[in-house]
Amino acid sequence: RILSPPSDSDANGIMSRAKVLTIDTMNPTVKKVEYAVRGPIVQRAVELERELSEGMKKPFAEVIKANIGDAHAMGQQPITFFRQVLALCSYPELLSDSTFPEDAKSRACRILQSCGGNSMGAYSASQGIDSVRQDVARYIERRDGGVACDPDNIYLTTGASDGIVTMLKLLVCGEGTTRTGVMIPIPQYPLYSAALAELGAVQIDYFLNEEKCWSLDITELQRAVNEARQYCNPRALCIINPGNPTGQVQSRQCIEDVIRFAAKERLFLMADEVYQDNVYAEGCQFHSFKKVLFEMGPEYAETVELASFHSTSKCYMGECGFRGGYMEIINMDDEVKDQLTKLLSVRLCPPVPGQALMDLVVNPPQPGEPSYGSFIKERTATLSALAEKAKLTEQVLNTVQGISCNPVQGAMYSFPRITIPEKAVKEATEKGQQPDMFYCMKMLEETGICLVPGSGFGQKDGTYHFRMTILPPTDKLKILLNKVKEFHQRFTQQYS
Amino acid sequence: RILSPPSDSDANGIMSRAKVLTIDTMNPTVKKVEYAVRGPIVQRAVELERELSEGMKKPFAEVIKANIGDAHAMGQQPITFFRQVLALCSYPELLSDSTFPEDAKSRACRILQSCGGNSMGAYSASQGIDSVRQDVARYIERRDGGVACDPDNIYLTTGASDGIVTMLKLLVCGEGTTRTGVMIPIPQYPLYSAALAELGAVQIDYFLNEEKCWSLDITELQRAVNEARQYCNPRALCIINPGNPTGQVQSRQCIEDVIRFAAKERLFLMADEVYQDNVYAEGCQFHSFKKVLFEMGPEYAETVELASFHSTSKCYMGECGFRGGYMEIINMDDEVKDQLTKLLSVRLCPPVPGQALMDLVVNPPQPGEPSYGSFIKERTATLSALAEKAKLTEQVLNTVQGISCNPVQGAMYSFPRITIPEKAVKEATEKGQQPDMFYCMKMLEETGICLVPGSGFGQKDGTYHFRMTILPPTDKLKILLNKVKEFHQRFTQQYS
Repeated sequence: RILSPPSDSDANGIMSRAKVLTIDTMNPTVKKVEYAVRGPIVQRAVELERELSEGMKKPFAEVIKANIGDAHAMGQQPITFFRQVLALCSYPELLSDSTFPEDAKSRACRILQSCGGNSMGAYSASQGIDSVRQDVARYIERRDGGVACDPDNIYLTTGASDGIVTMLKLLVCGEGTTRTGVMIPIPQYPLYSAALAELGAVQIDYFLNEEKCWSLDITELQRAVNEARQYCNPRALCIINPGNPTGQVQSRQCIEDVIRFAAKERLFLMADEVYQDNVYAEGCQFHSFKKVLFEMGPEYAETVELASFHSTSKCYMGECGFRGGYMEIINMDDEVKDQLTKLLSVRLCPPVPGQALMDLVVNPPQPGEPSYGSFIKERTATLSALAEKAKLTEQVLNTVQGISCNPVQGAMYSFPRITIPEKAVKEATEKGQQPDMFYCMKMLEETGICLVPGSGFGQKDGTYHFRMTILPPTDKLKILLNKVKEFHQRFTQQYS
Repeated sequence: RILSPPSDSDANGIMSRAKVLTIDTMNPTVKKVEYAVRGPIVQRAVELERELSEGMKKPFAEVIKANIGDAHAMGQQPITFFRQVLALCSYPELLSDSTFPEDAKSRACRILQSCGGNSMGAYSASQGIDSVRQDVARYIERRDGGVACDPDNIYLTTGASDGIVTMLKLLVCGEGTTRTGVMIPIPQYPLYSAALAELGAVQIDYFLNEEKCWSLDITELQRAVNEARQYCNPRALCIINPGNPTGQVQSRQCIEDVIRFAAKERLFLMADEVYQDNVYAEGCQFHSFKKVLFEMGPEYAETVELASFHSTSKCYMGECGFRGGYMEIINMDDEVKDQLTKLLSVRLCPPVPGQALMDLVVNPPQPGEPSYGSFIKERTATLSALAEKAKLTEQVLNTVQGISCNPVQGAMYSFPRITIPEKAVKEATEKGQQPDMFYCMKMLEETGICLVPGSGFGQKDGTYHFRMTILPPTDKLKILLNKVKEFHQRFTQQYS
């Protein structure tokens, strides 16, 4: 029996042929994906920018995009040394240019010698360039006070997102009540919910404690996993530390408790540590999950499965466009590791310039090298400015009645809670909009400031937030915060 | 009812805890993925390289990797102009360096002006940098003799692979006999089979005609789709032109027939055209599916859905490591396009250096510009050398009894058919190996030459092939071909 292709063409020909691919016949899991950081509000911001450039009158002169952690777009300058090495790697004829420092040249030579045909244009190994993975391993050992790191456990990635999605992909299996469940913090970075939706995995929410500076309570983890075991198979626990969008930095004790919980509940740990150099608050310090795990002794160090993620996009470098990153895999089953390597080989390799940049981040100029001074100066300036802006943001927002903002201990965002008057909630609901989306959209239209509504990250029912980056230059940030303040007061008045 | 976590720990503690993620509990679709181009034979080649470097004695002095289309790794030089612009974009201080030509500087300025904060370190729009997409559109219009191209239909990608996987992802739906089926050529480039396995879509094989220089017969397409309609829902037809691994270049007539077939059978067309500048044979010419589609009049031009793919990795530039690429989407439903853009936004953006490189490929130096002469000279030298090596490969291989090789009309590979003696087939089968894997593994161990067995690409039952790139420098290629010849003769004798 041969079936015919489905057809709706009329007797006159095929001009009326319906499309093969429509919203009704496309992949249903893709439809479920949402990604607020680049969602409708950002699309409207881009439209407004175009309208402004076409001379249309607006109540503001420019659109300020505080929606995304895109440091260079906000005027942050790249680290000179990094860019010198990248230029040398791109065009090795510059190696004979005497204006480039010797340490930049030696780094470039080391990277090029590890590339096929000494060119960044060659594919690398799927797992990443050997010498870069070795440098990453040494970086982790230094960072973690000497805890050993095997370069074989390092996989270079296309930004951290690539590594996170790949790990989730490995973990997904089962159907119905045996389907893989993955625990994620609420509020979360929406890459997690998007990837889980696309993979058809079950998202298990655990709520961070806003009253205690967005800290993580083990009792809440326990509640979430207990409830989830009734409808799925919880297999992984994702942690974002320092937090995105919430900006908290976890204590060493908290991390130990999380590891014990993961061991007890048999969960694969995924530690998103891309903000590891972005810690500002007094008394706060970054502790890697790897280090804490190994300090807890062999009972944990030899059993708990952990993947941790880092990136070139954040910290003091902010090189998002290069899509560099790595993941370290601890205690992964050898056969699964082979499967991971195989899976990564299909996409051939992460971008080599991003790998080169990752190498520079983990192997920056050392004391005594010619570029050391300027590197330290640039890095310190960026991190001090971020610390200052973190404080400024918290302070100004907390002067506004109806806005309350936890300290920005780390990362690059504030995630203040906002009071939205009943009348505004009602108007939003009638429009079919989330109240905080309604609020942010109105702010964009009136002030040109682009924020992301808290509903894009998840929040407790009945609470409203927005995420704002602290990245604009200080003078611009001050203007921005004042505009937010004025808008909030106007909005509150209007809907009271 | 609260369930406990599964546990196999004994009374003495959790040290005996089984792993969360094992080969039995991982994603089953990932296990089905195969990617021969970087499979076991390449892993063995890497091992052999290490053994050689450690001073171990082998019957060869070096491993020659002819398994992958990695031009720079084989010694091909990058285009000077491209690398100059990339260096300028990486380190804009070089814009005041008088040794850089003015056209390189103006290209760099144009790219940087389109980047957030004038930095390649900023994220771009998810669809890619606006000005690059405009340049791509103009390139396509020139290439296709003026057929209009809308930049809104251009999506920049992380190499062509990223675009292909994304399009397949959109197309997958249904279960059982309504599950999406995708037609792919056999032999194919194994990205297709790998992506379909991972997505759980049905792979529908159509066989290229080896006797007619790997040409595509519409009757074979018809056979394949008719049979497939009994067990799945065929929704897409993938074409690779020029062919990988088969090296054929499709005639204009063939492309027209394919388009008519796709319209009649209601299939979404996917045209993998990454080798569009790699056409060597007399009388052969590259015709884009887009151009042919539009020349067939509105009945086709306004209805047939098409995605075509290009990349920075092949042609005369061979810049694989930068992971640049684009896809052009024709007649895609508007709602699906929104979903596509949303899906791409989750991975934020393709690597910006790769986008910059894609821009240079579509907008190279023009007559009258200072770099025009050297650009043309370098491009011509690379393409002429490839044409010469294509011919050389075919000629030498065809002198060997038991090897027969179609002309390498285009792309970068020969895919000769090899006769494997019965005794060798038997020995391979006993070892649980494909006979051509057995053959290639033996060749690697004896000669250091790394090829990919035909079974990794698919082939008619009972036939055997290997894929070999034509990329090594001419003198090295000659040595390589002679070694293949000697090995084949020795192998044949040994098993006769």
